[in-house]
Amino acid sequence: MRSAEIIAVGTELLLGQIVNSNAAFLSKELAECGVYVYYHTVVGDNPERLQQIIEIAESRSDILIFTGGLGPTEDDITKQILAKYLSKEIVYDDIHLQKIEAYFATRNDTMSENNKRQAEIIEGSTVLMNDFGFAAGMVFQQKAHTYMLLPGPPSEMQPMFVQYAKPVLLRQNDAENLILESKVLRFFGIGESKLADDLKDLIATQTNPTIATYAGENEVTIRMTASANSREEALRLIAETEEEIIKRDGAYIYGTGEVTLVDLVIQQLMDADMTISAAESLTAGLFQAELAGTTGVSKIFKGGVVTYSNEMKQTLLHVSSETIENKGVVSQACAMEMADNVRSICHTDIGISFTGVAGPESLEGHPVGTVWIGLSIVGKPTLAYRYVFQRDRNYNRRRAVKEGFALIKAFLDEKTNKTSK
Amino acid sequence: MRSAEIIAVGTELLLGQIVNSNAAFLSKELAECGVYVYYHTVVGDNPERLQQIIEIAESRSDILIFTGGLGPTEDDITKQILAKYLSKEIVYDDIHLQKIEAYFATRNDTMSENNKRQAEIIEGSTVLMNDFGFAAGMVFQQKAHTYMLLPGPPSEMQPMFVQYAKPVLLRQNDAENLILESKVLRFFGIGESKLADDLKDLIATQTNPTIATYAGENEVTIRMTASANSREEALRLIAETEEEIIKRDGAYIYGTGEVTLVDLVIQQLMDADMTISAAESLTAGLFQAELAGTTGVSKIFKGGVVTYSNEMKQTLLHVSSETIENKGVVSQACAMEMADNVRSICHTDIGISFTGVAGPESLEGHPVGTVWIGLSIVGKPTLAYRYVFQRDRNYNRRRAVKEGFALIKAFLDEKTNKTSK
Repeated sequence: MRSAEIIAVGTELLLGQIVNSNAAFLSKELAECGVYVYYHTVVGDNPERLQQIIEIAESRSDILIFTGGLGPTEDDITKQILAKYLSKEIVYDDIHLQKIEAYFATRNDTMSENNKRQAEIIEGSTVLMNDFGFAAGMVFQQKAHTYMLLPGPPSEMQPMFVQYAKPVLLRQNDAENLILESKVLRFFGIGESKLADDLKDLIATQTNPTIATYAGENEVTIRMTASANSREEALRLIAETEEEIIKRDGAYIYGTGEVTLVDLVIQQLMDADMTISAAESLTAGLFQAELAGTTGVSKIFKGGVVTYSNEMKQTLLHVSSETIENKGVVSQACAMEMADNVRSICHTDIGISFTGVAGPESLEGHPVGTVWIGLSIVGKPTLAYRYVFQRDRNYNRRRAVKEGFALIKAFLDEKTNKTSK
Repeated sequence: MRSAEIIAVGTELLLGQIVNSNAAFLSKELAECGVYVYYHTVVGDNPERLQQIIEIAESRSDILIFTGGLGPTEDDITKQILAKYLSKEIVYDDIHLQKIEAYFATRNDTMSENNKRQAEIIEGSTVLMNDFGFAAGMVFQQKAHTYMLLPGPPSEMQPMFVQYAKPVLLRQNDAENLILESKVLRFFGIGESKLADDLKDLIATQTNPTIATYAGENEVTIRMTASANSREEALRLIAETEEEIIKRDGAYIYGTGEVTLVDLVIQQLMDADMTISAAESLTAGLFQAELAGTTGVSKIFKGGVVTYSNEMKQTLLHVSSETIENKGVVSQACAMEMADNVRSICHTDIGISFTGVAGPESLEGHPVGTVWIGLSIVGKPTLAYRYVFQRDRNYNRRRAVKEGFALIKAFLDEKTNKTSK
């Protein structure tokens, strides 16, 4: 397999003004292309230092991928320095040039020579279209090396890579008759270290498929990537590994591919034609805000209340003063009343509630991180679940929201199974 | 001024499993220490490649800062490879060794040789205490170079750097009689590119103080860092530049230092002894969730409602059906009724409301990104403000929340000014 070095060019990275998230994105993508990444390098907008970096990278990597330095200003030097170093000419790419000219024409603005710089490419390149900006990307081969130049802004770089650059790298695999397949498994309710521990032997001896774990917030994903001479063989290799992973931690898998837990719950609610409302105390709107992050959610989501103070639990939600006085707000009884009442007030099929101690102070004698989640569902007995998270305030709040989605999913999974029997 | 290279060691970075945020954090900190950062490098847990990286870094930088590879497993090789390369011995640091022993003793667990590895340091090092983990950090000088080794997890690395490592670098400045001072200005309502453009000449000719802009979400900060032989001189240099910046874009400055817009609003509400509630449609809880992210906010924040559907605007908030039918929900009238009604239902001094079109579909003929924010304040006429953001759904929602905080701040600023007259 070939090796790559990712070279980010930009003084703003060296000042810490932005984080080099491009390197992580490309590394993940390159693993799927069957390319090993051995180095990431960041260098400023400085001709001498950039040229030295190119020399070093050529001595140790097959593919040099540059991000940044393709913009319109004098500071943007990536293609100029690389062309000079390789004794190549710079020419205009007509498509990008027309695009820039058209932009200035519609604005009745004059295009400067600097603006035209973004349409320049190194002679002999395959142009990589920029659908979200003016700077042309490019890729070319010289002797043993592949050189790829991508723009710095992730909003331009990522779609350009996926749409136009990745196929070029994959075609290089075709030449070697190498087929790559990958599959993502998504876990909830298990930490990355526990998962890595359970799969220690698989990860330690991995060669084909490769197994990489990625920890999101309260979620872990595993990407398996297999290479073979046929699609069937690659898929068979993945299936074998997947089976072994399911045997050990299948109970924590909630989905595959790019879908999130929230997406999945929304889709299930739509399929089941069930509406939902929420009553939030410690999470204070976080659950509802996350739900409303998805387009088209208004079909199943009506609204709810944020009852941060005890007074609001009574005013907005009619939680009885007996419950608050005798059981407290961090209680099963309060969570159940909140869930029942929000469901009835909002006329929905499901009502979910969150009450507890975000921290840093304990409340009613309960330790920080104690959370009750209530779930009231039409035609079912209302339940409440207790959790103790024991982390900082905002982790506890976000974790509670995730657990809420997991609870709804568990109910909907069960419902679907029953229906299909 | 001295130059530094930040070397991150860890295969997980090259697989894209994590983003190298440590490099950005340290670059920012090093700028405050009067150290230029010319390179970031990432290399895997591979002895040969790591040694080559050390050789290259020594040839071009004064200070080598390593992050990662100080853990307990065989993969963690940073100090072993560096010690071997410099022909130095590895010894135990007693304090970290006792800390690890104590941990295993209280858990009645046996400590393995691997666990003890985290207490190892390179002979002659100044130990950097790890207050949030077991891996000792270290710094030492050999001939012309300073070598600093820090743990990989940001939760351990960041406090170690700020508390123990930064003072070492600053003392090196003392030896050169160099005093550094810095000041942060915080902007809202102006984009980073506009701000950079307004200050183009200042930024282009910057030497002392240096001027760096950082773009957060909907916020921009500028950090000025001056070096001089006395504190007075450094502060004078900063004040001069600050004056020039204020002259050009002072209207957008909302604060200085590490305080956020939300922190500032909460503090002002507490100082004014005013309570707040919110009615959220398109933002669906985002404003309230952000407010509740801060400890102690219950003194001023009671709760509110999420009225995502039109029906909920009537049920929970008693918005009149006349308003909804005749004016629509994306209207000044609706925003004002929502703000008034949530204030009255929740018995607070301030009621704020958010209604509009998050996207991607337009609503009631209004384009995506149209947002009305209503503000109802005890003893003042209720107002509503219209915005058109024209970005994607989640940007529009988050931007609306920020504008809401800015509106409250503007009111409270005015109130304070009036009172003090």
